[in-house]
Amino acid sequence: MTVIDGNAIAGQLIEELRSEVSAMPENARPCIHLVRVGEDPASVSYVKKKQETAAKIGMTGIVTVLPEATTQAELFAFIDALNADSSVHGILVQAPLPKHMNERDTFNRISPLKDVDGLNAASVGKLVQDDESGFASCTPSGIVELLRRTGVRTAGKHVVVLGRSLLVGKPAALLMLQKGPFADATVTVCHSRTKDLPSKTAQADILIAAIGRARFVSADMVKPGAVVIDVGINRIADASRKSGQRLVGDVDYDAVAPLCEAITPVPGGVGPMTVAMLMKNTLKAFKMRGC
Amino acid sequence: MTVIDGNAIAGQLIEELRSEVSAMPENARPCIHLVRVGEDPASVSYVKKKQETAAKIGMTGIVTVLPEATTQAELFAFIDALNADSSVHGILVQAPLPKHMNERDTFNRISPLKDVDGLNAASVGKLVQDDESGFASCTPSGIVELLRRTGVRTAGKHVVVLGRSLLVGKPAALLMLQKGPFADATVTVCHSRTKDLPSKTAQADILIAAIGRARFVSADMVKPGAVVIDVGINRIADASRKSGQRLVGDVDYDAVAPLCEAITPVPGGVGPMTVAMLMKNTLKAFKMRGC
Repeated sequence: MTVIDGNAIAGQLIEELRSEVSAMPENARPCIHLVRVGEDPASVSYVKKKQETAAKIGMTGIVTVLPEATTQAELFAFIDALNADSSVHGILVQAPLPKHMNERDTFNRISPLKDVDGLNAASVGKLVQDDESGFASCTPSGIVELLRRTGVRTAGKHVVVLGRSLLVGKPAALLMLQKGPFADATVTVCHSRTKDLPSKTAQADILIAAIGRARFVSADMVKPGAVVIDVGINRIADASRKSGQRLVGDVDYDAVAPLCEAITPVPGGVGPMTVAMLMKNTLKAFKMRGC
Repeated sequence: MTVIDGNAIAGQLIEELRSEVSAMPENARPCIHLVRVGEDPASVSYVKKKQETAAKIGMTGIVTVLPEATTQAELFAFIDALNADSSVHGILVQAPLPKHMNERDTFNRISPLKDVDGLNAASVGKLVQDDESGFASCTPSGIVELLRRTGVRTAGKHVVVLGRSLLVGKPAALLMLQKGPFADATVTVCHSRTKDLPSKTAQADILIAAIGRARFVSADMVKPGAVVIDVGINRIADASRKSGQRLVGDVDYDAVAPLCEAITPVPGGVGPMTVAMLMKNTLKAFKMRGC
């Protein structure tokens, strides 16, 4: 059984990006503008990590924090200004947004040329069209990159995606349905309404768990020899930790890992790849600017 | 076993549309502009059928035929003019296009507000986002309408889609993954690279065949009691016909039909629904105009 080291693989990718960016003139490098609304603790930590990673690569990472009480119209106006600002190449609005805002409309407000998070309709549509000029959203494209760099070919394999979210489940399925050695998979998408779920997931050569339920995937749901990609990031109580909690994935790791050919841990699996792919998309946006 | 009568169901829908349109002032009714490039015989027949159906409903259906030698730039200029023409509410460019043209770029040239064929990136992206302001492409949305009007609920069922095209396979899968009684399905997409195909298709409660191979789906690939939707339109030689050929679907109808709870015939199944849904989308575009 191989534990897929997302930190190490993301580190390779970040080093490649750093090497490319460091060859650019200092006054003409990619810039990502990160927007956070309110003080959701997980969002604070994600945005900080993204800004630090940009800095490590030599990109500019600007963070704007808007108050929780910001209106939808004010956020749109702020996004419009970033869309019009030629010094900004990529824009990310950190989810989740406060409840009085519409996330989809917010994602769709970002210019398709700066949509490095890959969540707006134009980006997602290009994914369906196999059009590589678009931005694939970061978590699913991070999964593909993880498989590619681990040497796990997906062509002809049965990939089962557990979850149908706009952020992960659907784009992961669409990427796996494209053509190529790290795509070309037979894809099944399961979700909360799926009947007899274990019989579906147990067919997976590659199981992508993105259902957002702590340790939901048990050993009986996994075929021996499968590759398991755990996208979940769930906080559970843990009295032995100073913080009183710890992170676990959507997979019951201790029970499932011994069955697998390979598995991603949580933390340290898919998470670091998501951040690295955001930076890769930002470099792509920078290269496409003015197109 | 029920034979799903696509002609009758499309006829109901067309009558509903006719009833709604006939209540509109004669000088303010929906208009669809159909563009055909060259003289592909199937395209000639499809475009004629679409124009006739528009007329039956009381919509305006204009056909422009461009010569086979039209350049991509000339086609784009023609589409741009239609996009700018406020008397045109829906635009359809009939596929297949001549080989010197790019179909995807052509579909993407159509304004998202007039993309009644539902094939451009913005329309497809909205499908992924469950955003009902977009246009779902006509064949997959025709399948959903057929299931709805036949009373076949898909929630919790296993839908297997055979084919991963932009026109049918992928949007059909995406529609079936949305929420609601005629969606909410567990969805598997199979294609030319799928291994052990019969074991996958035989799991289908509802099998959607859109692989473009005459009578490809045999009895061993279908679970007894399944609902089979045959999207294929293949011409095969038939010496007993005056034309020397006849249409068959992707399903070996005679062998498969006796196993099914319900099945669509070819012709007279999905085909008429595609045309009816195009008209439904045109009415929707008309109502949204100026938004």
